Amino acid sequence: MSETKLCPVTKFTQIMGGKWKLRIINAIRKHEKLRFGKLHALVSPISRKVLTDQLKELERDQLIIREQFAEIPPRVEYSLTAAASQLCSVFSEIESWSDQHYK
Amino acid sequence: MSETKLCPVTKFTQIMGGKWKLRIINAIRKHEKLRFGKLHALVSPISRKVLTDQLKELERDQLIIREQFAEIPPRVEYSLTAAASQLCSVFSEIESWSDQHYK
Repeated sequence: MSETKLCPVTKFTQIMGGKWKLRIINAIRKHEKLRFGKLHALVSPISRKVLTDQLKELERDQLIIREQFAEIPPRVEYSLTAAASQLCSVFSEIESWSDQHYK
Repeated sequence: MSETKLCPVTKFTQIMGGKWKLRIINAIRKHEKLRFGKLHALVSPISRKVLTDQLKELERDQLIIREQFAEIPPRVEYSLTAAASQLCSVFSEIESWSDQHYK
């Protein structure tokens, strides 16, 4: 039996699966724009390699924007797309649930 | 540097991390009570081994209740704890976001 229409929660977990992506988006959301080093420090203990891969996937899935500035030394900043910004209502529900259950 | 207080989203991803748990909880939520076989069919393509492990972790984290009935053949049913039931507001935000962005 093939699933003709995926459940929205299934689609969400396919995109956000793994333990890092929600945290990466949440960190960028709080700071609006973040450079790689700062993001790496905030989403501890992620490795630089895994963070790089996760950022590429998030960029491919149109959830984050990668901006590179022609400066010396080169500067790269990550920000959220409009779609990812609209996750804020998901985060606020997660936060209130989490605060209530993990005191 | 140690983190003294974990961000609620970090705690949430630690508990819900991986691609299956939100889907398992969502499937049980929609049916109230589910037997292993039905759950396995709904959370496709999870393996029986992985589903068993995920259910044990969810039970340990007090998100699901495992009830075993002394019948022949033995019957086991899974349902949500009050804490997991209160995730419904998270799911409804995920669903509306997902419906909007993955048409």
